[in-house]
Amino acid sequence: MKVGIIMGSKSDWPTMQHAAEMLDLFGVPYETKVVSAHRTPHLLAEYAESAKARGIKVIIAGAGGAAHLPGMTAAYTSLPVLGVPVQSKALSGQDSLLSIVQMPKGIAVGTLAIGNAGAANSGLLAAQIIGTHDETVMAAVEKFRAEQTETILSNPNPAE
Amino acid sequence: MKVGIIMGSKSDWPTMQHAAEMLDLFGVPYETKVVSAHRTPHLLAEYAESAKARGIKVIIAGAGGAAHLPGMTAAYTSLPVLGVPVQSKALSGQDSLLSIVQMPKGIAVGTLAIGNAGAANSGLLAAQIIGTHDETVMAAVEKFRAEQTETILSNPNPAE
Amino acid sequence: MKVGIIMGSKSDWPTMQHAAEMLDLFGVPYETKVVSAHRTPHLLAEYAESAKARGIKVIIAGAGGAAHLPGMTAAYTSLPVLGVPVQSKALSGQDSLLSIVQMPKGIAVGTLAIGNAGAANSGLLAAQIIGTHDETVMAAVEKFRAEQTETILSNPNPAE
Amino acid sequence: MKVGIIMGSKSDWPTMQHAAEMLDLFGVPYETKVVSAHRTPHLLAEYAESAKARGIKVIIAGAGGAAHLPGMTAAYTSLPVLGVPVQSKALSGQDSLLSIVQMPKGIAVGTLAIGNAGAANSGLLAAQIIGTHDETVMAAVEKFRAEQTETILSNPNPAE
Amino acid sequence: MKVGIIMGSKSDWPTMQHAAEMLDLFGVPYETKVVSAHRTPHLLAEYAESAKARGIKVIIAGAGGAAHLPGMTAAYTSLPVLGVPVQSKALSGQDSLLSIVQMPKGIAVGTLAIGNAGAANSGLLAAQIIGTHDETVMAAVEKFRAEQTETILSNPNPAE
Amino acid sequence: MKVGIIMGSKSDWPTMQHAAEMLDLFGVPYETKVVSAHRTPHLLAEYAESAKARGIKVIIAGAGGAAHLPGMTAAYTSLPVLGVPVQSKALSGQDSLLSIVQMPKGIAVGTLAIGNAGAANSGLLAAQIIGTHDETVMAAVEKFRAEQTETILSNPNPAE
Amino acid sequence: MKVGIIMGSKSDWPTMQHAAEMLDLFGVPYETKVVSAHRTPHLLAEYAESAKARGIKVIIAGAGGAAHLPGMTAAYTSLPVLGVPVQSKALSGQDSLLSIVQMPKGIAVGTLAIGNAGAANSGLLAAQIIGTHDETVMAAVEKFRAEQTETILSNPNPAE
Amino acid sequence: MKVGIIMGSKSDWPTMQHAAEMLDLFGVPYETKVVSAHRTPHLLAEYAESAKARGIKVIIAGAGGAAHLPGMTAAYTSLPVLGVPVQSKALSGQDSLLSIVQMPKGIAVGTLAIGNAGAANSGLLAAQIIGTHDETVMAAVEKFRAEQTETILSNPNPAE
Repeated sequence: MKVGIIMGSKSDWPTMQHAAEMLDLFGVPYETKVVSAHRTPHLLAEYAESAKARGIKVIIAGAGGAAHLPGMTAAYTSLPVLGVPVQSKALSGQDSLLSIVQMPKGIAVGTLAIGNAGAANSGLLAAQIIGTHDETVMAAVEKFRAEQTETILSNPNPAE
Repeated sequence: MKVGIIMGSKSDWPTMQHAAEMLDLFGVPYETKVVSAHRTPHLLAEYAESAKARGIKVIIAGAGGAAHLPGMTAAYTSLPVLGVPVQSKALSGQDSLLSIVQMPKGIAVGTLAIGNAGAANSGLLAAQIIGTHDETVMAAVEKFRAEQTETILSNPNPAE
Repeated sequence: MKVGIIMGSKSDWPTMQHAAEMLDLFGVPYETKVVSAHRTPHLLAEYAESAKARGIKVIIAGAGGAAHLPGMTAAYTSLPVLGVPVQSKALSGQDSLLSIVQMPKGIAVGTLAIGNAGAANSGLLAAQIIGTHDETVMAAVEKFRAEQTETILSNPNPAE
Repeated sequence: MKVGIIMGSKSDWPTMQHAAEMLDLFGVPYETKVVSAHRTPHLLAEYAESAKARGIKVIIAGAGGAAHLPGMTAAYTSLPVLGVPVQSKALSGQDSLLSIVQMPKGIAVGTLAIGNAGAANSGLLAAQIIGTHDETVMAAVEKFRAEQTETILSNPNPAE
Repeated sequence: MKVGIIMGSKSDWPTMQHAAEMLDLFGVPYETKVVSAHRTPHLLAEYAESAKARGIKVIIAGAGGAAHLPGMTAAYTSLPVLGVPVQSKALSGQDSLLSIVQMPKGIAVGTLAIGNAGAANSGLLAAQIIGTHDETVMAAVEKFRAEQTETILSNPNPAE
Repeated sequence: MKVGIIMGSKSDWPTMQHAAEMLDLFGVPYETKVVSAHRTPHLLAEYAESAKARGIKVIIAGAGGAAHLPGMTAAYTSLPVLGVPVQSKALSGQDSLLSIVQMPKGIAVGTLAIGNAGAANSGLLAAQIIGTHDETVMAAVEKFRAEQTETILSNPNPAE
Repeated sequence: MKVGIIMGSKSDWPTMQHAAEMLDLFGVPYETKVVSAHRTPHLLAEYAESAKARGIKVIIAGAGGAAHLPGMTAAYTSLPVLGVPVQSKALSGQDSLLSIVQMPKGIAVGTLAIGNAGAANSGLLAAQIIGTHDETVMAAVEKFRAEQTETILSNPNPAE
Repeated sequence: MKVGIIMGSKSDWPTMQHAAEMLDLFGVPYETKVVSAHRTPHLLAEYAESAKARGIKVIIAGAGGAAHLPGMTAAYTSLPVLGVPVQSKALSGQDSLLSIVQMPKGIAVGTLAIGNAGAANSGLLAAQIIGTHDETVMAAVEKFRAEQTETILSNPNPAE
């Protein structure tokens, strides 16, 4: 396992599966688990503190509303943590975004966009981080990037 | 000790002292401590889990920005937790407020206003909670309430 | 009756019933009533002022838009008041939240999240408050808390 | 007295005096008083319910934060009520504005701008309302309006 | 005609008809017309400048987005102008509200809530303004107010 | 070609086609192309740098979310650039609007409203710009403007 | 005169002078005038309707709060209108921005950033528009653009 | 050089120096440079495309307002890019934050908090990323983390 993908609730999976799909694309092995900062705080501590020893290089955490999971994960590990703000019902993820990104000096979370795009990009950024020391992964990222560029270049007519 | 007042940083004290002053007014004994959800997560777990056994009835937690302290305190205890959003620099406490109030179903934080007024009211509400089973404290609350009413009634001229 | 659940309109009931369900779960007796700050201000005064004598320990008030019910209830009683911002049509409860939480120094409302989660948590927090002096209720809260933790621990696969 | 100007706190007077100054300009008699929805709810009920009998035609109410004064005044009287959102510390009056303007169907508050301009305009609008049946006041309003137009027309160079 | 109800577009009618219905209830005669500040500025000037001579006492103006109709109407008349922020598509009426309420000192618009509730209340407030000098209208307003109070008092069970 | 209409993704076409339709109405020749600031940055540089030589007078760029296309287009050309904030999923175009309009001193983007209205108006404003030196186009714009005025004047009943 | 710079109040000049300075830099002749949509609506109509005949090619309009000047100017002319949201006191220009940019389909305002940067860029964009048919102005714009690029390239050390 | 720190303007240095100071603390070599997405787009392309070959592992980009630098840097490189929203004047960095974080699927930026805390945390997160394959850097990060925990534990009295 190189990446751990955790989320506060099963209801976050339709969002967070985009992170998993991106890692599949790059051939990066990962694990997925429901870990709630509020309902399973001891599990969170244990998960985050043991991640490095299990070979995890990057943790992706997704949560909505008063989204404490990414920041609390970062509190328990020195691994890089990426946060995905899940789109919430009343405030459309504005609460999730601010709860994740506005971390105080000394504990960092690299935050992605609200919702599916952000989840996909958390997988992409995790692969880019791993790719800094893994040429195969970096090559897969660059292939994906080249293909998405080519998709536009080869079909630039918006009305088609 | 009946009330625990905790905060994420010493820089929150100018705000949170208003909670302490209110409890002083009502004669409710309390303790104050810096406990950071992000920098001292184990201390937070220990503090919150041991609070009930130490006789604490209500915990007041103040924090700013991605304010995870109140919600994580609530995750570790079944005591009522009150949250005070400290006014943050860039976003004036809008981040603090949303990070504290938008808790998911199953873990509750009773949230007060941003800044000094909210801190003072956290002390007041803690006293009201204790007052539900302590006539002396309730009497002190009612005296305070009557006095603040009287202050207006006896001096209603806005321009004086 | 230990808890009074009031709301500004019948249209708030689909939200506020989550408070009632939570109290049912903990075996806390409660009453429910439509009381409008704007349309029945005298009823509100009478309700709030008589609550303590009727044995009520905590009042839960839910309202949307320019949500004055929780704050005005608090103005008429020294009992702890919890406020639930009902999700409004145009502004999704941002108006409800600010109208409830931003109380001035001297009159406090413990505010929960916007919508159903907040309503459920108002019931939970009311039970926690009562539980500070009622071991049976506190035990019920702790059982609920343990069960929701167990639900995650026993089924942590997000994709299942 | 034709107009009642009330406000939640003496600290609102630097804002609300602009309402008074505007009424002075139009020769409309008024009274000013501190009436707090939260700290003196019975005074508010009495003030609003007795206003019509005292000859008041319009009530201007200014408040900040969870600003319940204008809406609650409207709840107790059938006189037209104008609301002035006082600029609050943390949220710059966004909370005051939403708490005043987002009234439910059935109880109306005519809301002005946040701060001094809104306070001045509450005096102007009160005079316009009185002017619908008082030619002297309407003439004074029209003179003021003509003069402010003339001030610009006679000195249109922005850099002077 | 006592009240003029204008709006920037036919698409505003589903909102603004609530103003008309309220005036019908109180027996206040009114006229309705599409007048666009942006597409028919000369019509707006003519409409607003001639309103007083035609016996109009209050103008209600509803508009959405960059909602300039209420403020520009107020610029052309000394009659009281009430503004209704129509709920816009992208920003849910936040743009409409700010464009209407944040008028500079010297030209006032009494602003109501976003959408249908605000439109209904504009009719109510117009009737209250007219009622300051028309006992029949004021009696109709008071009857409506008493009935909406009675509706709650006679049926206070939220779950029924 | 007088106008270039570019957009970050094919999914922006349902919005941006309103720009094209408006230019069709005025007889202004234009080209449309998908050009992504993020996925095809070199294409963007080439497109913007070559536009003037190809006879383009105005570039219209539409994008959503972290909408960098209009500002980056402006970075690569001295032609006037108009920006259309496409309505985004989570934040309804508030992110698109701020990303486009808040340009630093020295590189300008003339920004239109969020969504379809803004797209249509980008076509209108482009025609107005071309019309400053093309009497035929200006006449077409004025005819459109006169017709939309006439549409209201000839049918002012909102309820019909 | 090629450009008209108007603003709602003399207090807008410290912002709007940045538009004038930019036009000075490019040698584009302009006029400046205080024209208030609310206090001098007839002057505004006259100014905007006569601008084209006086040789004006672009109108720049700056205003704050419920900023109706740019949109109403556009309502009275077929010349391109650029809008500058002046930073307002309570809401920091968020009200100004939305009041200017959210124009309905059919009347367009090209909106720049809030405050000084937006004012400067309105002058730049006006010059770019004029430059589409005036090689001297376009050359001046390109010289300015090249110089600001060179300023960075020749001194890229941030800490110096 | 392991990390490149770039920013849109020299005025961003007082913020971005906190990134540099953090990297100094961990002994991670870095370079700093002003690179403007809008004023030097070719320099940005060249900088980002050549970074990997020069040994850079992570790029930190800070910018304010319509902050396009981080996203455009990510468009030109497959290295991980971290974005720092610099606090802007009118909107306090809300524009910077949304412009940086709301990236579309396919190009990722790991976004930190607004202002100094975010800049410091960008340095910390860059070190954590490098630390995934550099034990010395990881040890330095863990020492820093332990020390900041110890600072609180050894001095928990907020009032001292």
